[in-house]
Formats: sequence, structure tokens, C-alpha cells
Amino acid sequence: MLAIAIKEHKLEPSEIMCLSILYGQKHHRELEAAKAVADYYGCESHVIELNHDLFTGGGSAIIGEGEVDMPHLTYKEIAEGEGVSPTYVPFRNGNLLSAATAIALVGGADSVYFGAHAEDARGWAYPDCTPEFIGAMANAIYVGSYHKVRLLTPLEWMMKSDIARKGLDLDVPFELTWSCYEGGQFACGECPTCIERIEAFKVNLAEDPIEYAVAVDWDS
Amino acid sequence: MLAIAIKEHKLEPSEIMCLSILYGQKHHRELEAAKAVADYYGCESHVIELNHDLFTGGGSAIIGEGEVDMPHLTYKEIAEGEGVSPTYVPFRNGNLLSAATAIALVGGADSVYFGAHAEDARGWAYPDCTPEFIGAMANAIYVGSYHKVRLLTPLEWMMKSDIARKGLDLDVPFELTWSCYEGGQFACGECPTCIERIEAFKVNLAEDPIEYAVAVDWDS
Repeated sequence: MLAIAIKEHKLEPSEIMCLSILYGQKHHRELEAAKAVADYYGCESHVIELNHDLFTGGGSAIIGEGEVDMPHLTYKEIAEGEGVSPTYVPFRNGNLLSAATAIALVGGADSVYFGAHAEDARGWAYPDCTPEFIGAMANAIYVGSYHKVRLLTPLEWMMKSDIARKGLDLDVPFELTWSCYEGGQFACGECPTCIERIEAFKVNLAEDPIEYAVAVDWDS
Repeated sequence: MLAIAIKEHKLEPSEIMCLSILYGQKHHRELEAAKAVADYYGCESHVIELNHDLFTGGGSAIIGEGEVDMPHLTYKEIAEGEGVSPTYVPFRNGNLLSAATAIALVGGADSVYFGAHAEDARGWAYPDCTPEFIGAMANAIYVGSYHKVRLLTPLEWMMKSDIARKGLDLDVPFELTWSCYEGGQFACGECPTCIERIEAFKVNLAEDPIEYAVAVDWDS
């Protein structure tokens, strides 16, 4: 998304502030990766912490040390999942976007970029990634900020394979990025986000440059 | 609003959790008053704290020790105000409602009550109290919570004078409540919320039972 903002939306890196949020996620290691990507593009980065109590006790597999076990599912099983996803965090994206909007207003920014994508919206996996949620939040943010801040979601209609292809086209330093929900030394290769990330590269006949804790067959 | 929920919506006090939020407001004394009102009705009350950094530096007169001076305006001047209100806090209500939604989901509640009213929406004073904001947030909350939580705003179309009349009808213990933005020992009687509260009682030919730091002429 940062590559799109700079290379396609033609923003200057100095105009951008990359915001990462600690909210009790098991994989807070993603913040180091986010900073490395921001540094790569010459953007300022900033971390804020939200009260972890908001999301604790909600039964999410990605909070704390894992209130419930991380699901190990196939790509097809993830896509066909119904009901509440075990990795859903209670109204997380409403909280993250509201925090980002406050920070945008204080800092004088006119837009908040949000990387929700179509694969996260599929099968009602994450209701706070759907076009319906995004449209409602975009309205709330625009109206509630005196029309000063807009919500931009350039990945809204892209599957992870589209995003990988776009990233490959834009020379994104994928080796600096992090997706895994486990937050270990290497990507686990087994949690839902690893499964989807691996599939996204395979669809593009490409190999993911990050290290996985398990062997991945890139030619299958 | 609590009286409406219990006496008109027929909720049992034991079904209700009263949520107060610390976010850096100068008038955190309002939390003691909120607890006293919750206790009066036999409801559980709960306090959470949001990261004050979110709202600091946004130039609000109600944050910290007052980043800017509290305006002292007449009732008419407040109503006719245009542009950004000096007491606006950057996207505060988006943050408070998102936090309340996470807590509702974790606690198994099906509704969030929000006391925004028509007088706060007038003249674009608080854009995050308008029907447009409320409708957008209600959608975001409903969709983003797997259709588990609704936003209820029974005061949305009431002016403060309507709210005072309703409260008088429902025998609300107004002596336990707090509105003043200054958060001193007594209500200041001069900040915008005191001016509006005094007017609301006067319209109903009633006297506010709380003490004010300045003399109030209830017969004018």
C-alpha cells in the first residue's frame, strides 16, 4: 500500500506518516517489519499503543499468548469459513481507524490509508474489512472530522494474489515485510495469513523471499 | 439516557454496564458523577482509559490543562458558532464508540447507548454528534461486529431542554450529574456546556439542583 501511495498516487515520502499500532497482538513483531519498510521508502514511522484491555477476553487467536489455539486450515477451508473467525479481534479495525483519524487530525493529514483487502472480506471472515464496513467508516471519518480526513482503501477490491502481483510490479521489498500471526523468528507457514500469503505468491509463479519455519513447495 | 433505558426501554439494571472513558479530559470529575448515577440505578459501572496521546496537541479546550482557553460565550453565540468548535476533540466519539463496541462484544452486550443530542449537532458544533455521523457509525458497528452490536441514540433528536424535561418527568437525580467542562469543585457556570445546561432548566421553568461557582438567576 505504501508503494502504491508513493509510486502510483505520487505522494512524496516526506508527506507520509506510517502508523503502527500495538493493541495486544501476539505478532507485535510486525511493527519492526513496518518500520523497516517505512525506512526503506524514506517515510517517517510512528507507533501508538491502544489499551489492550479492549480486546482481551474476546476469544481471539491473535491476542496475547493466544486465548484460543491458532487454526491450521487449508487455503480452501479458510475461504469457506463461516461465522466468527477465530482470528477476529473485537471491532479492532474500528478502533484502529478511529485512532488513526485522531492522529491525522492532530498532525494535519488529509487522508488515512487502510490496507483491508478482498480476501479478508471473503466469507465474512473479517466483517471489519468488508466494503460495507469501509464505506460506513469512511462516512463517519469524513463527517466526524469536519470533512478534513478521508479514508483511502486502494486494496479494497484486490485479492492477496493481486496484491503480490502489484508488489512484484512495483519492486516492493517483500523480504522486509511480515504477515504471520504467530510472530516467531520466522513465519510459521501454517497460520491462516501464512497460508494465504504463500498461495498469493504461488498464483504469480513467484517465491516469497521471507524465511518460513516449515518447508514450502513453491512449485506445487 | 440511563433513566430512558430502564424506565422506557424496560431494561433491567443488572443487564446494563455503564461505561466511562478517561481520554485526557480536563473534567475527569465527570467519571465520579457517572458512577454515582450508575450506583443510584443499581447498574454496574466500568472505567477504561484510552491513550491520551491520541487527542493531545489537537488544540482542544477540554484536553489536559486546556491547550487553548475555554470559550465564554452566550447561549446565542454558541448556537451560531461556525467552523471547528474550540471544545472539539479530534474524532473523539469515533474512538469512544469503537472502544465501547469492543467492550460490548467481549462482554456479550447487544447494544451500545450513546448520548449525543441535537444541541451538540447544531451549527456543526460537534460533527461527531450529527445524525450523519451516528448513522455511519451505527452501520460500521453493526456490520463490523458480525451484526451483534447496534448503536442506540435515544437523545439524537432532543435538544438539552427536551432532555431536562424528560429527566424531570423520569425523576432523574440531576443533583448527582455533571456536565461542566472545567471540572472544578462546582460547575463553573460559564463554559459552553454550563451555559446550555442552565438554559435547558430555565426553558422548563426549573432550577438545576447542582451548585454553580457563579450566581445563576433562575427567574430571568
